[in-house]
Amino acid sequence: MKNYLSFLFVAMLFAHTITAQDTDRKIQFPDIDGYLSLKADLHIHTVFSDGSVWPNIRVEEALWDGLDAIAITEHLEYQNHKDDLPNPDRNRAYYIARDNAKAHDLIVIPGAEITRSLPTGPGHCNALFIEDANKLLVEESIDVFEEAKRQGAFVMWNHPDWVAHRPDGVARMNDFNKDLISKGLIHGIEVVNDITYSEETIDIAKEYGLTQIGASDVHGLVDYQFRIASGNHRPITLIFAKEKTAESMKEALFAGRTVAWFNNNLIGEEEWLKAICNASLSFEYDDYIGPTTILQVKVTNISDVDFILNNTSKYSFQRNARIIEIPAHSEKTLLVRTLESLSTVDLQFEILNAVTGKDEYLTLDVPVAKKK
Amino acid sequence: MKNYLSFLFVAMLFAHTITAQDTDRKIQFPDIDGYLSLKADLHIHTVFSDGSVWPNIRVEEALWDGLDAIAITEHLEYQNHKDDLPNPDRNRAYYIARDNAKAHDLIVIPGAEITRSLPTGPGHCNALFIEDANKLLVEESIDVFEEAKRQGAFVMWNHPDWVAHRPDGVARMNDFNKDLISKGLIHGIEVVNDITYSEETIDIAKEYGLTQIGASDVHGLVDYQFRIASGNHRPITLIFAKEKTAESMKEALFAGRTVAWFNNNLIGEEEWLKAICNASLSFEYDDYIGPTTILQVKVTNISDVDFILNNTSKYSFQRNARIIEIPAHSEKTLLVRTLESLSTVDLQFEILNAVTGKDEYLTLDVPVAKKK
Amino acid sequence: MKNYLSFLFVAMLFAHTITAQDTDRKIQFPDIDGYLSLKADLHIHTVFSDGSVWPNIRVEEALWDGLDAIAITEHLEYQNHKDDLPNPDRNRAYYIARDNAKAHDLIVIPGAEITRSLPTGPGHCNALFIEDANKLLVEESIDVFEEAKRQGAFVMWNHPDWVAHRPDGVARMNDFNKDLISKGLIHGIEVVNDITYSEETIDIAKEYGLTQIGASDVHGLVDYQFRIASGNHRPITLIFAKEKTAESMKEALFAGRTVAWFNNNLIGEEEWLKAICNASLSFEYDDYIGPTTILQVKVTNISDVDFILNNTSKYSFQRNARIIEIPAHSEKTLLVRTLESLSTVDLQFEILNAVTGKDEYLTLDVPVAKKK
Amino acid sequence: MKNYLSFLFVAMLFAHTITAQDTDRKIQFPDIDGYLSLKADLHIHTVFSDGSVWPNIRVEEALWDGLDAIAITEHLEYQNHKDDLPNPDRNRAYYIARDNAKAHDLIVIPGAEITRSLPTGPGHCNALFIEDANKLLVEESIDVFEEAKRQGAFVMWNHPDWVAHRPDGVARMNDFNKDLISKGLIHGIEVVNDITYSEETIDIAKEYGLTQIGASDVHGLVDYQFRIASGNHRPITLIFAKEKTAESMKEALFAGRTVAWFNNNLIGEEEWLKAICNASLSFEYDDYIGPTTILQVKVTNISDVDFILNNTSKYSFQRNARIIEIPAHSEKTLLVRTLESLSTVDLQFEILNAVTGKDEYLTLDVPVAKKK
Repeated sequence: MKNYLSFLFVAMLFAHTITAQDTDRKIQFPDIDGYLSLKADLHIHTVFSDGSVWPNIRVEEALWDGLDAIAITEHLEYQNHKDDLPNPDRNRAYYIARDNAKAHDLIVIPGAEITRSLPTGPGHCNALFIEDANKLLVEESIDVFEEAKRQGAFVMWNHPDWVAHRPDGVARMNDFNKDLISKGLIHGIEVVNDITYSEETIDIAKEYGLTQIGASDVHGLVDYQFRIASGNHRPITLIFAKEKTAESMKEALFAGRTVAWFNNNLIGEEEWLKAICNASLSFEYDDYIGPTTILQVKVTNISDVDFILNNTSKYSFQRNARIIEIPAHSEKTLLVRTLESLSTVDLQFEILNAVTGKDEYLTLDVPVAKKK
Repeated sequence: MKNYLSFLFVAMLFAHTITAQDTDRKIQFPDIDGYLSLKADLHIHTVFSDGSVWPNIRVEEALWDGLDAIAITEHLEYQNHKDDLPNPDRNRAYYIARDNAKAHDLIVIPGAEITRSLPTGPGHCNALFIEDANKLLVEESIDVFEEAKRQGAFVMWNHPDWVAHRPDGVARMNDFNKDLISKGLIHGIEVVNDITYSEETIDIAKEYGLTQIGASDVHGLVDYQFRIASGNHRPITLIFAKEKTAESMKEALFAGRTVAWFNNNLIGEEEWLKAICNASLSFEYDDYIGPTTILQVKVTNISDVDFILNNTSKYSFQRNARIIEIPAHSEKTLLVRTLESLSTVDLQFEILNAVTGKDEYLTLDVPVAKKK
Repeated sequence: MKNYLSFLFVAMLFAHTITAQDTDRKIQFPDIDGYLSLKADLHIHTVFSDGSVWPNIRVEEALWDGLDAIAITEHLEYQNHKDDLPNPDRNRAYYIARDNAKAHDLIVIPGAEITRSLPTGPGHCNALFIEDANKLLVEESIDVFEEAKRQGAFVMWNHPDWVAHRPDGVARMNDFNKDLISKGLIHGIEVVNDITYSEETIDIAKEYGLTQIGASDVHGLVDYQFRIASGNHRPITLIFAKEKTAESMKEALFAGRTVAWFNNNLIGEEEWLKAICNASLSFEYDDYIGPTTILQVKVTNISDVDFILNNTSKYSFQRNARIIEIPAHSEKTLLVRTLESLSTVDLQFEILNAVTGKDEYLTLDVPVAKKK
Repeated sequence: MKNYLSFLFVAMLFAHTITAQDTDRKIQFPDIDGYLSLKADLHIHTVFSDGSVWPNIRVEEALWDGLDAIAITEHLEYQNHKDDLPNPDRNRAYYIARDNAKAHDLIVIPGAEITRSLPTGPGHCNALFIEDANKLLVEESIDVFEEAKRQGAFVMWNHPDWVAHRPDGVARMNDFNKDLISKGLIHGIEVVNDITYSEETIDIAKEYGLTQIGASDVHGLVDYQFRIASGNHRPITLIFAKEKTAESMKEALFAGRTVAWFNNNLIGEEEWLKAICNASLSFEYDDYIGPTTILQVKVTNISDVDFILNNTSKYSFQRNARIIEIPAHSEKTLLVRTLESLSTVDLQFEILNAVTGKDEYLTLDVPVAKKK
């Protein structure tokens, strides 16, 4: 059977060569000042709990999406294919994905989804960077979290707004949740899960100092669930890490250096939103048009975000109303009516798809100065 | 030569048959309650003043754009091809365009551009629906406007922000302008001209009761100047008229029933913006999702506007942040978190590209009720 | 856990609602005279042999592709996930797919891939419409085929050109293959497998009276393997059946009523190629242009094929060279130079992507007559 | 009025800046061995005969299309706007276009269209590179051609298949034409004019040694007549010249070094078709796939042609039928079944859209050798 397999391998490799034509879908964000901007999907299922694909497919999808990392997070307490897949090792899906990723520059994070009920229990939580998922199989909810802590896990609260737990789709804390957080057993929260988003989770994150996470929670295929062929993207978390390593990502997650990327929105804390927006958008002083006091400012967007700006400067623009769209990976020239000829112009924008809270958006101060 | 011409005619007709493939660029807006929404470009030049095409091309361009009406508005006092085109009849371009339009459902409005200087004079103004452009060739500025009035013309003030007159690109009134308005000799104002827009013209329009106009002022080719192949459109005025006739349009213009359509922005008075937005967007109560209190509301947009909505409702949405885009000619389902099951839900949106003034946008109240 | 599951069900249903936007990829062919044109993929793997997805994903992919039928054809002698999936029932994948398809108008055909070696053995063969895959698990190759016959199976020879068996990628018969065919134990042959095609298989099909099949043999994801997002399609077999039932498809396969659809090529016997091309393309006598002898003939293509025609008529066309492309789902007007005014014009085309053999293409005679 | 004009100039310049977004439509062909491949449209009208635009528009259109040269070729004997444009100087359109082109790298060729009737007269002919169009205004047809010769003009026979002269749309020689050619007064022929093509003109070109020309003969707008926004192109002539000068182009035209580019077809003499196809397409020996005898050959197409190849090699390909499309500006890997491992493989293709005559196509021999 050796020949069979080696030929199979050649054929598969060949078939899966990813061509230039296919790279458009790769998610692209620039690094920020001082950190790499790592693209991670921290919530993923396979056939080993209630997903529908073998773990290697999760690696392939991640490569097509240009991700830096994925976490395999099977339900600890729920495997609906158990009759067919009786293997009791809760690390099995991780091992397969990790082995498949070896040939690629993709980090696979070992994880597990603690699957408890709300509103009485703690709900669902992902323990990431764990040593052994099997040891998390304990009766009492609190004990699972204690064990996760023993393993040094970063623990995030999943979809607190899930309609199966909260029929109004609104996230709320219960005593169990508060207790876990107060004990340092939960460190992050999904402000975005799958195709849903709930603005009150941002408030919870801010009030309780939790790291904001966006994740796919994919069970079927990424391409179908998130309509990739129509130009959409899966939700991910941008993790601002010093290096491209699991260790460095873990450090960044505990330090809260993240932004969620969902449905053309960046969601997160002001500091990190500002960092990624500043890295994505640049504004360049060009020239005044002839003898006028109208300044050309060239805007360049090197990210995947179709930015929606609200011009809150004291200056208006000759060709645009106050709301201006700067599509992903594009350039645009703004014609700023500065009223007199200036060598420095202070522009200001509210970025309407950089969300810091309910009805709250990032304000970006943009000084534009003449080159010397 | 008869044969020659008739064959030429056949060949041209054939070549210019407009196929289904080409209809995407046609500008489309629904009619509003009580009025037709006529699409008009009220400021156009040809070789007979300082444009670069024969008048028949203006008719062709208008047909490709799906317009209902164009006005031919040659400069009265400026013809830079005069040596080649010495014909002194200022109605000549209009006659040619009108004859070319006869086979089509396109209204050609006779007009002329009064071309006087700012800041000392009245600037440029279009007199529309005139009887004879030649009679407007008089020395004194004020006399031209008096003659236009005698002919029953609707007169609009063109590009008050034009940098050739106002080097800071900011529109301002002078005594001459105020005098003309007070005498009822000017009735409209370009809030949009060519590729420019200036928010202070909206204030002037509102303060002085002028009809808001958006127009192309095209000299070269519409397709190049407005990047049609890249999906853009020329600026036009939506005129809300009772019938598709020149007379009815004139009545609507005097009555101020217009909205300007520019660079994906609707600009105008609240009443007419609300009318066109209500006609363009519909919201339909669908169903609650299973046992949840999350209501599906189907939004349908039948206009060319890529609407940018700000959800100012008391309800948030399960899948969207507060800023929501509803692309032209599309449907989208909003998942409204109503907290309890309701048979009527009051939604409210600020439409960020329906501009009523500087930093002012149309607010649309949208009651969504269960069908009986 | 009941609540959990029902909510999950709602969520999945919702997420997987297929919108209008996604229907472009659905494979579309018209029915032919006397038969339905059923779209089938007769060679598919899942995790239950060496594929990478749970069987429900194969159903989803088929729905996205607009297929009428899929066959689940796991390797009988090869399961590389056996350690994780020890279930010995070789019908298991079929059962799961069948249950998933119940809510949809998709036929799932029970099958199995007999996995024997070439060049000494018979190679790989799919037995379709079987009663019980487990009974095919017998030692001797010939016995498997006898058992398939007992179950009434349609048996096809898979990828006779497979490089793992034939390092030059050229299909060749061995004694075993000839013996099986002579005994009526093999009825079809893959002229297309996955992303490969070999013209000599068409000769084999014709010489031995085998039904021509195109199939995906998909192991990973259809979308990635066949670059669906770039506008490509998976290989399928068009089966010309009297009804949309498994029984009727089986009858059509035994009767040889198929065409393979691969990489924008139709491959098959002349009779059925002609039928599907005639159903796809229509030619309509329109009018002579003015006083000329140039006739307008409107061509309409209602299939997914981008047809490449070679005009072998005695007439040439005014606007086209001899090679003419008629894109999928489009209309085009040909200007035929008939030299005199005719009420019937006999056109003839070689269809360069309707392949009947090596360097052999379908010739289509197209009489175009004036409507009365 | 100085200010007025200078501002106008600034505004127009700005408005007409051609952005990266608009460059896709620029026609692109590589240079061939020993010559530049200059892109020229040698047949163009403006308002100064029976066209509909001022000459500056022809310069703009050419810049958008990325042309190297245009010829202004007004009808000598026909000006249907004469009443409005009484200027008798037949060079006037050329002068204006030339002045407009000065700021750009575009050559404007002075020309004139001799407009005589068929079938009794010589038909229409363009005299190019003339000194003075006015001197061509003489009574007798033959005298015009003699005068053109005196001016050193390259003279081409326009649309010999024009339905106004030939109601069956078929080009035929008359005695006058033969006489002109025999006297060396006609040097080229339009095998393509506007949206028409007639294969018998290629035979005439070959029989009489005439240079093959494709030209737009545009009267209205290039963008509308040739459906540019739908991805089409105007017909042009590729002129293989030593330098980018009018003189060098004239030399090349007299020497017959041209290929016409029409509706995705290259039409011309074998020598020059082969040169441009060899420059456009490259084939690179890559590697054999694993232990097989299947060779990967990488094809690169750097031209605007969507090539349609017919593989007439003795080898077949693993993934393609004999007809293969190589889209403009793309790469594709062919998998060649060489049956044994070879260091040199002789491929051969018929290029079905490189037309050398009626039913005749360029054959390209492609030796592909292992790199050392």
